[in-house]
Amino acid sequence: MTASTTVPAPSTPTATDLAITDITITPIAFSDPPLLNAVGVHEPLVHRVVIEVRTANGLLGLGECSGGSTRLKNLAAGANAIKGVSIFETSRMEQLINQALDPGLGAFERAAVFSAFEVAALDIQGHATGRTVSELLGGTVRDEVPFSAYLFYKWAEHPALDGKPAITDDWGEALDPAGIVRQAQKMISEYGFKSIKLKGGVFPPAQEIEAIQALRDAFPGMPLRLDPNTAWTVETSRWVARETEGLLEYLEDPTPGLEGMGEVAATAAMPLATNMCVVAFEHIRRGVELGSVQVILGDHHYWGGLRHTRELGAICETFGLGLSMHSNSHLGISLAAMVHVAAATPALTYACDTHYPWNGHNDVVKPGTLRFVDGSVRVPTGTGLGIELDREKLAELHRQYLDARMTARDDTGYMQRFVPEYTADLPRW
Amino acid sequence: MTASTTVPAPSTPTATDLAITDITITPIAFSDPPLLNAVGVHEPLVHRVVIEVRTANGLLGLGECSGGSTRLKNLAAGANAIKGVSIFETSRMEQLINQALDPGLGAFERAAVFSAFEVAALDIQGHATGRTVSELLGGTVRDEVPFSAYLFYKWAEHPALDGKPAITDDWGEALDPAGIVRQAQKMISEYGFKSIKLKGGVFPPAQEIEAIQALRDAFPGMPLRLDPNTAWTVETSRWVARETEGLLEYLEDPTPGLEGMGEVAATAAMPLATNMCVVAFEHIRRGVELGSVQVILGDHHYWGGLRHTRELGAICETFGLGLSMHSNSHLGISLAAMVHVAAATPALTYACDTHYPWNGHNDVVKPGTLRFVDGSVRVPTGTGLGIELDREKLAELHRQYLDARMTARDDTGYMQRFVPEYTADLPRW
Ligand SMILES: [Mg+2]
Ligand SMILES: [Mg+2]
Repeated sequence: MTASTTVPAPSTPTATDLAITDITITPIAFSDPPLLNAVGVHEPLVHRVVIEVRTANGLLGLGECSGGSTRLKNLAAGANAIKGVSIFETSRMEQLINQALDPGLGAFERAAVFSAFEVAALDIQGHATGRTVSELLGGTVRDEVPFSAYLFYKWAEHPALDGKPAITDDWGEALDPAGIVRQAQKMISEYGFKSIKLKGGVFPPAQEIEAIQALRDAFPGMPLRLDPNTAWTVETSRWVARETEGLLEYLEDPTPGLEGMGEVAATAAMPLATNMCVVAFEHIRRGVELGSVQVILGDHHYWGGLRHTRELGAICETFGLGLSMHSNSHLGISLAAMVHVAAATPALTYACDTHYPWNGHNDVVKPGTLRFVDGSVRVPTGTGLGIELDREKLAELHRQYLDARMTARDDTGYMQRFVPEYTADLPRW
Repeated sequence: MTASTTVPAPSTPTATDLAITDITITPIAFSDPPLLNAVGVHEPLVHRVVIEVRTANGLLGLGECSGGSTRLKNLAAGANAIKGVSIFETSRMEQLINQALDPGLGAFERAAVFSAFEVAALDIQGHATGRTVSELLGGTVRDEVPFSAYLFYKWAEHPALDGKPAITDDWGEALDPAGIVRQAQKMISEYGFKSIKLKGGVFPPAQEIEAIQALRDAFPGMPLRLDPNTAWTVETSRWVARETEGLLEYLEDPTPGLEGMGEVAATAAMPLATNMCVVAFEHIRRGVELGSVQVILGDHHYWGGLRHTRELGAICETFGLGLSMHSNSHLGISLAAMVHVAAATPALTYACDTHYPWNGHNDVVKPGTLRFVDGSVRVPTGTGLGIELDREKLAELHRQYLDARMTARDDTGYMQRFVPEYTADLPRW
């Protein structure tokens, strides 16, 4: 008998051992500074969800995704659908979750629900086999994953409201070019990032171009990105693209829709990037036909997990598109998943976005594994995601969620508490 | 400490244990009937290669690919490049192989070389972790993989040549519709296939349409395919498409080139399929732009292994293309790999092609695991590919290769031994 037919050692878990027996879905809330964007301002708390999947043989896998009452309902339905399935059968999990979810739900929400469970399943696969998640995706093509400094216009504090005092933070105010440069200096000195993204769409575009120019002056040679979240018309976007020629590695979502983006792309010198008009596989075909974007910001939460993110990379390579990575406010479980898939995706051509510096040093992952050094995070070497859940912190952030009675993120409504006439109608300029 | 950080059991192999230490490349030859196609006739022997990859801890993984002296040279260079790499680092293996191969080599040959090693690596990954290859690809979406009956026009025997006697086979002659129907009946009675593919491009198209009509009459309701390997002009292809409307589930490679295929597709009622004009990721973009094909025949040997074949499936889904599977003459290692990836690829929408019935019951895989029941092969449940190498048979087929002094497949040259005026200029009609 040759080695190729060696009977698995007795300790190898069977499919039954690896059946999903228990899933815990824990909504949490953690602090967030008053970061400004095109539709309002971040509330004092971010709502997020931690997924714990357990197998018959006692292994635990972790997932994380954004929250909201609709998401929680869909996660519960998804969890119910995959009980009893082997942790290695992630394609079946996807089918079962899709069958269990409301037929009217779009591809985006379906992908987000599956993604949380797929990450947890891959985490367990890694524990069960003694391998890292990136090894299960084909192995790494880089040992560390570069991230960019994600800058925001921001207020100095969350104003006093409803009898509660104002909430300050370490970052201070950033409402003009000098404030943005100060923020960049602080973030880069702490994290070592080697590229910079400015969240725009907050002030008239000429002011945001000034901020970009100030960043260029303060950080010569550092790649810069500007993302106004579709705050501009096609005409304005074309003007900004001309004004920032030679300044930006890419311009992200200047205007709404595949058609509008295509019109901007036709005259812009720099690539256009998106995490808004191409956010599911079903959008790619038309985006390619129209030449709407030259860079897609992948995000395993958006695209249905880590394997599908690698597939997105293959599509980008095949169609001559660049691949970067999007981020919402997140904690360490998502960061670890991002690092593993980014390290395992040859097509990734840009430093990834991350909100991690904005989480007020809150995390449900015990410290030590995920560290930014020179702007990059080394791929964790422990089995699975290579991280450990901090149960005390999870309980604390869950209590915070319960106390806050959060249901959905509402940047616009929160802004209107202070600026009643504020509207989120885009494009604004 | 939670289960998510359990230290791997002491028996878990380390990366060093799983380093590739030894690769054996064994050219083999096995018998093949005189099957006719658009460029000649199959020679009495098929040249193929078996790859054995071994790790420091003594695990063995198997790969298989087509042969020829150029391929053997490239396989040797690839093998040399990946010594010492962990078997889980398949993306790095791909990079190293690409660096080691002649810079002038095209994507197709590069993919074929990497594929043989990737399959062997996944086989070992499965042995190392106690999982099947399909589990390592995301798990199965089907428990068995359907194949189609692959019919060929054929001579009754390989004629006597160079003082050697004629070589007969169990299949008999098939040079007209009645012969093709007889062949189909024999193959379907033995294997249970539920769809039929006819290799055409041999006789004037009107005769091949007659054969398709005869198959339709003999097998009502059974899906039929016709593949003339680009033997027809655009005009002839359009005429055949009209004549076979309602008869074919797809028409495969009627005419050469993406442009020609696009012109045929514009008027054909049935989907056009290909394993000739879109055979690498770099061909897809233009194929989509021109609407050249509606079905791509994947083949892990062509597309760079099992993970890339799944990525091809994702591209097909994204761009509204069907996915089927191509086959060259092959043995059980390739069949097992085809079954695992087909079972793990949701996008697969057609029964797969296989030459397996034509191999004269030769195989380097021990019998028992890979069986056609009702035209389908159940996914092997053993670890890795789930197959066992037959070393006696391997040695026998290697001796046969050495005795035959084969260098490259030459259907045209072999045909010209009997029909000196034969040319392989296509399109022929
Ligand atoms: Mg964005
Ligand atoms: Mg073909």
